[in-house]
Amino acid sequence: MAYEYLNSINSPEDLKKVPVAKLNEVAAELRQFIIDIVATKEGHLGASLGVVELTIALHYAFNTPKDLLVWDVGHQAYGHKILTGRRENFHTNRRLNGISGFPKREESEYDTFGVGHSSTAISAALGMAIASNLKGEFGKHHIAVVGDASIASGMAFEGLNHAGVTKANLLVVLNDNAIGIDPSVGALKQYLTKARVGYKPKQSNIIEALNFKYFGPVDGHDIAGLLEVFEQMKQIEGPKFLHVITTKGKGLKKAEEDQVKYHAPGKFKPDTGELLTYDTSRLPLKYQDIFGLTLVELAKKNEKIIGITPAMPTGSSLKFMMQAFPERAFDVGIAEQHAVTLSAGMATQGFVVFCAIYSTFLQRAYDQVIHDVALQKLPVVFCLDRAGLVGEDGATHHGVFDIAYLRCIPNIIIATPSNETELRNLLYTAQLDLKLPMAIRYPRGRGVQKNWESPFEEVRIGKATCLKQGDSIVVLSIGNMVHNVSKAIERIKDEAIGHYDMRFVKPLDKEVLHLVFKKYKAVITIEDGVVTGGFGSAVLEFATKHDYKVKIRNLGLPDEFIEHGNIDELQEIAKINVEYIEEEIVSLLQNL
Amino acid sequence: MAYEYLNSINSPEDLKKVPVAKLNEVAAELRQFIIDIVATKEGHLGASLGVVELTIALHYAFNTPKDLLVWDVGHQAYGHKILTGRRENFHTNRRLNGISGFPKREESEYDTFGVGHSSTAISAALGMAIASNLKGEFGKHHIAVVGDASIASGMAFEGLNHAGVTKANLLVVLNDNAIGIDPSVGALKQYLTKARVGYKPKQSNIIEALNFKYFGPVDGHDIAGLLEVFEQMKQIEGPKFLHVITTKGKGLKKAEEDQVKYHAPGKFKPDTGELLTYDTSRLPLKYQDIFGLTLVELAKKNEKIIGITPAMPTGSSLKFMMQAFPERAFDVGIAEQHAVTLSAGMATQGFVVFCAIYSTFLQRAYDQVIHDVALQKLPVVFCLDRAGLVGEDGATHHGVFDIAYLRCIPNIIIATPSNETELRNLLYTAQLDLKLPMAIRYPRGRGVQKNWESPFEEVRIGKATCLKQGDSIVVLSIGNMVHNVSKAIERIKDEAIGHYDMRFVKPLDKEVLHLVFKKYKAVITIEDGVVTGGFGSAVLEFATKHDYKVKIRNLGLPDEFIEHGNIDELQEIAKINVEYIEEEIVSLLQNL
Repeated sequence: MAYEYLNSINSPEDLKKVPVAKLNEVAAELRQFIIDIVATKEGHLGASLGVVELTIALHYAFNTPKDLLVWDVGHQAYGHKILTGRRENFHTNRRLNGISGFPKREESEYDTFGVGHSSTAISAALGMAIASNLKGEFGKHHIAVVGDASIASGMAFEGLNHAGVTKANLLVVLNDNAIGIDPSVGALKQYLTKARVGYKPKQSNIIEALNFKYFGPVDGHDIAGLLEVFEQMKQIEGPKFLHVITTKGKGLKKAEEDQVKYHAPGKFKPDTGELLTYDTSRLPLKYQDIFGLTLVELAKKNEKIIGITPAMPTGSSLKFMMQAFPERAFDVGIAEQHAVTLSAGMATQGFVVFCAIYSTFLQRAYDQVIHDVALQKLPVVFCLDRAGLVGEDGATHHGVFDIAYLRCIPNIIIATPSNETELRNLLYTAQLDLKLPMAIRYPRGRGVQKNWESPFEEVRIGKATCLKQGDSIVVLSIGNMVHNVSKAIERIKDEAIGHYDMRFVKPLDKEVLHLVFKKYKAVITIEDGVVTGGFGSAVLEFATKHDYKVKIRNLGLPDEFIEHGNIDELQEIAKINVEYIEEEIVSLLQNL
Repeated sequence: MAYEYLNSINSPEDLKKVPVAKLNEVAAELRQFIIDIVATKEGHLGASLGVVELTIALHYAFNTPKDLLVWDVGHQAYGHKILTGRRENFHTNRRLNGISGFPKREESEYDTFGVGHSSTAISAALGMAIASNLKGEFGKHHIAVVGDASIASGMAFEGLNHAGVTKANLLVVLNDNAIGIDPSVGALKQYLTKARVGYKPKQSNIIEALNFKYFGPVDGHDIAGLLEVFEQMKQIEGPKFLHVITTKGKGLKKAEEDQVKYHAPGKFKPDTGELLTYDTSRLPLKYQDIFGLTLVELAKKNEKIIGITPAMPTGSSLKFMMQAFPERAFDVGIAEQHAVTLSAGMATQGFVVFCAIYSTFLQRAYDQVIHDVALQKLPVVFCLDRAGLVGEDGATHHGVFDIAYLRCIPNIIIATPSNETELRNLLYTAQLDLKLPMAIRYPRGRGVQKNWESPFEEVRIGKATCLKQGDSIVVLSIGNMVHNVSKAIERIKDEAIGHYDMRFVKPLDKEVLHLVFKKYKAVITIEDGVVTGGFGSAVLEFATKHDYKVKIRNLGLPDEFIEHGNIDELQEIAKINVEYIEEEIVSLLQNL
């Protein structure tokens, strides 16, 4: 495709030079451009394809960046990025030093609010709208584009509930494609579906009950229709709501047909959408699949096991349990707070609940972990996928705070498996009547073992494993970091270096710690989380309590947000890669 | 009052022996009993008075504890406690080793779920209801009693949204008294108010839209009427909702007239409700009032200042700003997540937003602090009232995790004023274009200074204050702990002891830390928060990084949940009282 129009569009101003009658051609080009780049560079696909027309209509109808446009979640904002001056950089999307896969304030004045986690847009846009009123800028529009999965989250409801009693010039655009990453769930979704198919409550609807002026549903792929309704809505003061129906993956047949897979499909043929698969049969499984498959295995034997995920059946692989035991596995939608307290409620009735949440999203349910689970010592097992650096999704998605924010909570066990067998054994152990909550954190991506179907062995809570004896310097690692450390030690080839896989951040293996602090001259800790308040800090607390004076080095993420890039690049930046560990050990050896 | 009926009621079974016609007499006695005890022992009053009839009707109609009853928030559960075997212990309410002011699983099988923070009941009860279905216990009822302020919280919505697509035998009782601690706000509240006054949407309502069977509104003080509707509702399968209208403070005229003051009124005359006031004119103000009054003072000069509170205008004293600048101060209801991201949205438009949240409730917005504020370096000022031990409200309410969970977040400043002047100067400094978020944590209760209206001085971010020079042992304290340490040092009378008020947990005063680690032989840190991952841990990280080998002792809360009691008692338990500090210093002095 020649990108006849697109090539001259570097801002919404340029877009507005195109006559309305030609906007469908812009849409076709924009869609193709997204497909062409994402096909080879990877990234989120379906969501952005679904809002091509909506994106064009918004920038055409409104006066961005003066009018403030907030994209909820933001993985649908590729079209927005391309139309607002980032077309030529779009091939750097999600790469180190490239543009972010999500709207980001530092990147462009058109990115009014950084997003990544869902359901923040209404609150943010309402804040902007109230601010505009205070500044006397009354003509300004403030638009939050929110998906139907996101709007069912409690936070979005809080925003709507507040907006409805304000005079804010807020437009909430519901991008209703009936799917988040997985199909949407919940009562509100059922209600919205009725509206999609033409059912109109005569007198009132749920949105109008919250004091919004409700418009729609309208066809989100009809640019002219969208422009018309936006012009109408611009004349209306106060909070208003447009229900737009779109198709996720629109315009790429395969993406429309398999919306879950084409959310972020990896590489594919741009013309047909055919996925470029490669033979993975010899690769280790992903940790998420080890979790998902093992849970089914355990659930077959233990009928007290329940699985819960807030909107991540595919991403967490809880889908396996949902297929095998549909009555004992629940996708509760984007509702982390509810997911955790629901788990707690079930646990009071004698169930062992495996609550699968990405590390970064458990931040959404922090109070519930403390107040509803840990305080009551309920046996909820938090399966924290995507713990540590996650790579291309970047700063909003790294699961790097979990150790620090969980470690300060009493009663909770924090385990960090370093391979598939460990993960399986921890899952097995977690369902053995522990009478305490447990968090098991494991990384994004594939494991390290060829044969994962090992027989279960109970793990002794709080016990470390000695991987290598030494007598001078010892490295205490957790989780995934074990492998970097082992490689670094192999390179150095010095008998003096010891290595323990600590396996648990809480409780720490005190016996091993006493031993190493008595035996070694220096101790290095390493973790793929923030070093501030993390695992290394726990080791310091132990050493201090017992007056050990051994030299200690804490490796881990620095006190700054780490951006996007591939894991190797980010590990280098965070100084937790093999090379840096090697350097640190060698330097310590030389300075003992 | 003779408590003719009440004295023989030690369980719902006993209650059921009373004929329906006499239940109003039970209600009168129960109400009087609550008034009599709370008048002298203090505690929450209005909420429990408002649900006396509802409590009786619930235990009369349902088969508790087999049927599972969850009280949201729980400060309205005094009647429930009294009717379920705790009448004779009720005078120990909220005292050390006495019964808890909130339902608590350890205390009684009738307390099915520990509560304290709002809006958890629907999720918990739904979890129990799903669990009952899985166990084949289909006749069991699961009841969540939720206030109108709580139900507007996002978490409650998440619970409703999920329940509506289940077959759970869940009854949500909306206890609608139009007030939380302060009057309820928001669009949903307006909607419910229409229902209260008889407006009935013909076809649908917001609750029915979520697939609940809606009943009501009914008079919550009419026991016979409640019993009738409960009997009807018992026959209905699936999720159902009863809208009950009550009057907070019912039966005590003054409590009905001033519902905010009589939420937890302190001591009063049981017959008239007249408050037992005492002359406070010579006492220091409460920290919350220093915050509230100072913010007004600053807002007069800086029109960019905005104040936000999630449902705590009175408790946080943001009410002063709401009165002085109603257009720049917002009560957004029980919606901590929204409050924080709304603040972030406003901050993007050049405002400095003071977001006043109790320390314990900021746990509800942890992700928003990280993802929406800190990552974007937005100048939101978190004013964390009730930080540290809060006393009688107990384990659910202590603000003791904040240092640990905030310290690991990049970009955020954490300040800990030790007196009113410090708090004022920090508030002043926070609005001086810092371009970073800041948390200011201060304790529940009164300050320590007679004259609080000092002129403002800019605080240098990250600078400690030397309170006493020494040469042997140094104590590094933060916030409130400064005073305990000073008293301990006064008692010991040893020139060798130094003392710094560190003032900031983040950034730490590196200059002072280098100085003390070079000068002193031992360092004690002390904080009124969990020692795991807290301020002391930050000092350890510093010492380790710079290879200081000085002996260090970290005082602070142990790794367990601290229960209710008065502050002195709890400080003793937590070993952060004057006596323990003295002991620790003396012991260190002897062992140097």
